[in-house]
Amino acid sequence: MKTERNIYLETIDIEQAQALYFREFSELYKDKNETISVYDSMDRVTAEPIFAKISNPHYNASAMDGIAVDATITFGAHERNPVKLVEGKDFVYIDTGDCISNKHNAVIMIEDVYPEEDGLVTIMKASYPWEHVRVVGEDIAVGDMILPSNHKVKPVDIGAILSAGITEIKVNTKLKVGILPTGTEIVNPGTVLKPGSIIDSNSSVFENMVKEVGGTAKRYSPVADDRDLLKRAFLKAVYENDMVVINAGSSAGTEDYTASLIRELGEVYFHGIAIKPGKPTILGKIHGKAVIGIPGYPVSAFLSFRAFVVPIIEGSMRIDRTKEKSMSPLILSKRVVSALKHKEYVRIKIGKVGDKLIGTPLSRGAGATMSLVKADGILEIAKNVEGIEAGSQVDVELLRPIKSIEKALVSIGSHDIIMDYVNDMMKRAIKVIVFLQHMWEVWVG
Amino acid sequence: MKTERNIYLETIDIEQAQALYFREFSELYKDKNETISVYDSMDRVTAEPIFAKISNPHYNASAMDGIAVDATITFGAHERNPVKLVEGKDFVYIDTGDCISNKHNAVIMIEDVYPEEDGLVTIMKASYPWEHVRVVGEDIAVGDMILPSNHKVKPVDIGAILSAGITEIKVNTKLKVGILPTGTEIVNPGTVLKPGSIIDSNSSVFENMVKEVGGTAKRYSPVADDRDLLKRAFLKAVYENDMVVINAGSSAGTEDYTASLIRELGEVYFHGIAIKPGKPTILGKIHGKAVIGIPGYPVSAFLSFRAFVVPIIEGSMRIDRTKEKSMSPLILSKRVVSALKHKEYVRIKIGKVGDKLIGTPLSRGAGATMSLVKADGILEIAKNVEGIEAGSQVDVELLRPIKSIEKALVSIGSHDIIMDYVNDMMKRAIKVIVFLQHMWEVWVG
Repeated sequence: MKTERNIYLETIDIEQAQALYFREFSELYKDKNETISVYDSMDRVTAEPIFAKISNPHYNASAMDGIAVDATITFGAHERNPVKLVEGKDFVYIDTGDCISNKHNAVIMIEDVYPEEDGLVTIMKASYPWEHVRVVGEDIAVGDMILPSNHKVKPVDIGAILSAGITEIKVNTKLKVGILPTGTEIVNPGTVLKPGSIIDSNSSVFENMVKEVGGTAKRYSPVADDRDLLKRAFLKAVYENDMVVINAGSSAGTEDYTASLIRELGEVYFHGIAIKPGKPTILGKIHGKAVIGIPGYPVSAFLSFRAFVVPIIEGSMRIDRTKEKSMSPLILSKRVVSALKHKEYVRIKIGKVGDKLIGTPLSRGAGATMSLVKADGILEIAKNVEGIEAGSQVDVELLRPIKSIEKALVSIGSHDIIMDYVNDMMKRAIKVIVFLQHMWEVWVG
Repeated sequence: MKTERNIYLETIDIEQAQALYFREFSELYKDKNETISVYDSMDRVTAEPIFAKISNPHYNASAMDGIAVDATITFGAHERNPVKLVEGKDFVYIDTGDCISNKHNAVIMIEDVYPEEDGLVTIMKASYPWEHVRVVGEDIAVGDMILPSNHKVKPVDIGAILSAGITEIKVNTKLKVGILPTGTEIVNPGTVLKPGSIIDSNSSVFENMVKEVGGTAKRYSPVADDRDLLKRAFLKAVYENDMVVINAGSSAGTEDYTASLIRELGEVYFHGIAIKPGKPTILGKIHGKAVIGIPGYPVSAFLSFRAFVVPIIEGSMRIDRTKEKSMSPLILSKRVVSALKHKEYVRIKIGKVGDKLIGTPLSRGAGATMSLVKADGILEIAKNVEGIEAGSQVDVELLRPIKSIEKALVSIGSHDIIMDYVNDMMKRAIKVIVFLQHMWEVWVG
């Protein structure tokens, strides 16, 4: 009955697998860039430094509403020595941003100008050359570097680029990631379910994780466990994308063809990584493109995708992921036991008790989707560590901003829907309280 | 010559203006929601709690590859008392995720199954009921709350929603913001420039700030300073959007019609806020919709937009902005002087010297676009405070992750393009060093 079965000969440490695999593809995906309109450049990553084509201001501009003058004719003006100026001859009215002609070199603020009859004005203060004038290039000079290379473009950057006379920029190309769910039991969401059928939720998680880090994703329909169908689907996905993620079929089960197919069509670098959940990950290559087999359980899938797919997308676009990772120290509320042979990722719910952050481990099952939804952070337990005692201080990677976590209700214990309701209502109540406090301060405080 | 001139009768404190103005519109924009496909729900905000329609698993599922049995027939099995089982009669082979029939209630891992001839297997360990079985609803039970209301949807949330049998959800409607640049001197980017003409860069900054917080933006072409043209443009933008931002024309200059037009067509709540930059902000209403006049200088525009437009967009979608604001204490490297009559926002460049974070004020001109591009944080100096001494510890709102700031080179001093080059090259060099260190650890350490 049992004919073919994959065997993990050994597992490899995650750090070693990452270093070797990423090195293979860092060259492959390097230096691909494209020229795009600045209007579409939000969150894209610059492929080269951007230099100003024009200055800003590109003319001498009034910094104030007032009158433009040649400063020399105002010298000596004083409260006891008012100076009269003639419109047209000595000055012109000017608004903020208006161009200052060659005849003038200073602006007197309108508040300091006392109009008389017949276009005459009086001033009682001397001006100095270039007072209240924004000279050419004051903000940006031709040739200034507006943005360095490998910079993720923000809204204010777009303003500066446009002000510097640039309408197109060169950015790192988005990596195209094909997402191929496999398994006869896998069905698209919305399908009528039979016992044994599994909704393909992972593909949409992957698709959005790809978008989140700036790649583009192509999601395919699930392919049944048929070697020929799978082979054709693999080759099509490899052809249409820069990188392919094959979901499920990567464990050691009978109908798991992923590893043997990648080996047939290309090369398998590693099958089995010393992490939990996520062990049955396959790192391979077909036709020079990265092909990664991701285990089917939702938590394994998320963690494996995060460990291997996300860094390749970011690396290809020269995004430094470590810059955005946010860690927080906290106290573990419960003992966590872990095996020596792998690095374990424990989902943690964080709460604030007094002024201390307390972390409670959530369900550790690889199929516990809700443990990911509820997690505020992830605790890594290193290989060769048996576990961590309750009360220990640990460093946890945060999955949401700490302020958001601090506002949530701590509820350790059984899965109780009443607590979900209370938490939901608390959030609304807190908003009302904050609003009332705010109004109180404005009106009374 | 000078015929009409707006006058600021008085300025109002920002906190008071925000409280009063936001209260006006919090009701107006409340509880607008729409039903969308889960596939499009990334970063949208739930309008109501989401409850599971089906359980996950929705059948009793094998948690392992192995054989499904009735646990009672394994009782007593032991290394010195092996038990033989007959395929079909006593057990069936099963893979992870497969459905367990009513005849069986436990799974024995394939590693513990010793195949014999003729479909017989031997086991040497007893099983217990529901061992290695994921029972119905173990992860998600029908009726469980998957997400609370007012929750921003993340990739893992999408997986949980789909697994719970849901394909459409109700989310808060995106606020539609019209962006209307005004001024005869304002030209679209890419236009050939004449002295006095100003590139409309603010509109694109606004557009992307709207997108960043989850609204939709409609950008209009610049309208000249002609009262009738402006009036028609105002009414069109108000008709087509939930909220309108009018850029420039909001100061006290001669051709600044914004305030008088909003007053004519609707109501002006405030004209002149006690902030710097950003004072000439106008908060108004036309046909029941928020209409905000934003000053033209890029820095004033950014800060005013951030103070008044962004919170209305977020509020309308029930996003709690304070949760994402990230503050950091640091030491001020230079004295900052500020006027008593307004709250001032100072752009700060942050560097790490030893283990201390040092903040240096950047150019404070309202026209200094590059001070926004280069800023790592914003320091607020309260009204009625004359300034802050060098060496003081201050709290600064961070504009980028602190890790990213810590890696940058500190360079205080004149604007030197060589420094920009060095900074750009340093970033590349650091990546090479990190990579080499990493390889060293993997191979040698």
